[in-house]
Amino acid sequence: MMKVRGYAARDAHSPLTPFDFERREPGPDDVRIEILYTGICHTDLHQVRNHWGGSMYPMVPGHEIVGRVVEVGKNVKKLKANDAAGVGCMVDSCRTCSSCVQDLEQYCEKGVTLTYNAKERNSEQLTFGGYSEQIVVSQRFVVKVPESLDLKAVAPLLCAGITTYSPLRHWKVGKGQKVGVIGLGGLGHLGVKLAKALGADVTMITTSPEKAKDARRLGADDVLLSPDPDAMTRANSSFDFLLDTVPVGHDLNPYLRLLKRDRTLVLVGALTALEPAPFGATFVGGRKSLAGSGIGGMAETQEMIDFCAEHQIVSDVEIVPIQSVNEAFTRLEKNDVRYRFVIDMASLQH
Amino acid sequence: MMKVRGYAARDAHSPLTPFDFERREPGPDDVRIEILYTGICHTDLHQVRNHWGGSMYPMVPGHEIVGRVVEVGKNVKKLKANDAAGVGCMVDSCRTCSSCVQDLEQYCEKGVTLTYNAKERNSEQLTFGGYSEQIVVSQRFVVKVPESLDLKAVAPLLCAGITTYSPLRHWKVGKGQKVGVIGLGGLGHLGVKLAKALGADVTMITTSPEKAKDARRLGADDVLLSPDPDAMTRANSSFDFLLDTVPVGHDLNPYLRLLKRDRTLVLVGALTALEPAPFGATFVGGRKSLAGSGIGGMAETQEMIDFCAEHQIVSDVEIVPIQSVNEAFTRLEKNDVRYRFVIDMASLQH
Repeated sequence: MMKVRGYAARDAHSPLTPFDFERREPGPDDVRIEILYTGICHTDLHQVRNHWGGSMYPMVPGHEIVGRVVEVGKNVKKLKANDAAGVGCMVDSCRTCSSCVQDLEQYCEKGVTLTYNAKERNSEQLTFGGYSEQIVVSQRFVVKVPESLDLKAVAPLLCAGITTYSPLRHWKVGKGQKVGVIGLGGLGHLGVKLAKALGADVTMITTSPEKAKDARRLGADDVLLSPDPDAMTRANSSFDFLLDTVPVGHDLNPYLRLLKRDRTLVLVGALTALEPAPFGATFVGGRKSLAGSGIGGMAETQEMIDFCAEHQIVSDVEIVPIQSVNEAFTRLEKNDVRYRFVIDMASLQH
Repeated sequence: MMKVRGYAARDAHSPLTPFDFERREPGPDDVRIEILYTGICHTDLHQVRNHWGGSMYPMVPGHEIVGRVVEVGKNVKKLKANDAAGVGCMVDSCRTCSSCVQDLEQYCEKGVTLTYNAKERNSEQLTFGGYSEQIVVSQRFVVKVPESLDLKAVAPLLCAGITTYSPLRHWKVGKGQKVGVIGLGGLGHLGVKLAKALGADVTMITTSPEKAKDARRLGADDVLLSPDPDAMTRANSSFDFLLDTVPVGHDLNPYLRLLKRDRTLVLVGALTALEPAPFGATFVGGRKSLAGSGIGGMAETQEMIDFCAEHQIVSDVEIVPIQSVNEAFTRLEKNDVRYRFVIDMASLQH
């Protein structure tokens, strides 16, 4: 075992504080990574505060991890020491179920092993995430990061990037399609960049008039303000695909009406109740669909990172030292970030 | 104009009573049909009682119509006098929008003309449905009924049949698939017969233990009782497709959990709010979809009728005279019918 320093929550109510713990020595299939940057995902806030129940403490959050490989096990061929590498929301899965064999580890039928707030496979040992110096991960769950990308702005791609990329690909978004991204935050700003790079005509759908200018800077062709009923009515039945990144329950009915016949709205943000309830008639009237999508498999995560390198897509980030993580959480709760906090892990040494 | 006798509701609260009205003489593309049988759809009850708002009176309900052609206009080739013919939920559409040109008249972008409780195209004249002696309909909205089928039991196919057949076909239900039909009523009992004829392994999912035997008689391979939490848990992630025929708002979460990854639950019954609201996590966890489907286009309705003739599928019916229509409505409200009331229109002459 090796000693590692990190920051942890000890319960749902206290601030995160320094925490020393141990990680396993790398096995033959493992990669040991020195963590350089870790994004602060909205999920970190939910899990630390136990908003969804079932949180386990001490909790070292962080599942948007970028660093450099320090050491690899003898079976590891795809990475070597000093390579830039990334780790996302998962560190293990059963590898044998029908989802795993189709490279959809995120839907592992035995349950995926999350990067933190979970237990190691067949063990009572808690997993600890990226708010720490180092991490040891099985090679299947590590992606290679092209050096042409700005590493600190890559970290959010490992969760926010793949979460938006995967549904855009699965529902075959591309040229000639009018795509709406609902909500301009960490997920939404990457959704706009990725949908645009895939060739779609992209509309940012937001409640905030003050975000319109920023949406266009990020690449949106158009902005639709959802509180404007006339604008929403004019846009009815005009979208080929909607990516809904709003992180809390909300009324889907006005958005479902924006879809053309036979088209789909995909939820990637809200995991809670969709209140007020959607209406059956909204679906029946145009054979419309509501679907969900969770992150992406590891092969697709590598594909996404390579796509981002090709199109020079990274996250808009605000870099903070680990000592400011509690303040960053408070600002995140108020949506006061454009568009992702990333922790500079070198600050752990101060 | 020609005089026609029927039964009509004069407002949302009174019983249906005899009503004399006029229909147009057939034009060159019209078919005049002597109505033999008309099914009583749950929608008739909703519309007569103005449950959904916007009901227009006097209202002659009925959109599950079977009869014999009396007369055809000079352009009509597909039908001739004395042919058995059917009319469903629609009698007209714009015919030029992208839905109409794809034979999806039910999703006409200008709005389909419903068989009753609607206005004739470009007119203030109300449409009057099948609780009447005769109807005159443009040939596009008339299907030919094979003589090998029992006509009185065919009537419900024109709405309940196509409403269940269309999604089964659109989502490519067939051999090797485990399909669940939720709710055993007018729609559900035809859903079981049709899914079975399409080659699927069919489970009836019902709240009523007393319906289990009947479900098997109708062709269900298995019965799942939704109030049994253990049975529901055992069935989690095992279905390839769910057809939800429940005609009122209900909790979808337990049903969505029954789906395998990447599969779809299709609503055909409930047009109201889906309360309590579904959870985003239920969709995200397995990239699942919730969709709706409304009846079917006219070409597909003909295909469905021909499929039913090939497989000798008709509705289970209870024949009633028009004079008992108000009593039938009352029994329908209590789900006291196995599985569709059909009015014998000859009774109008009594």
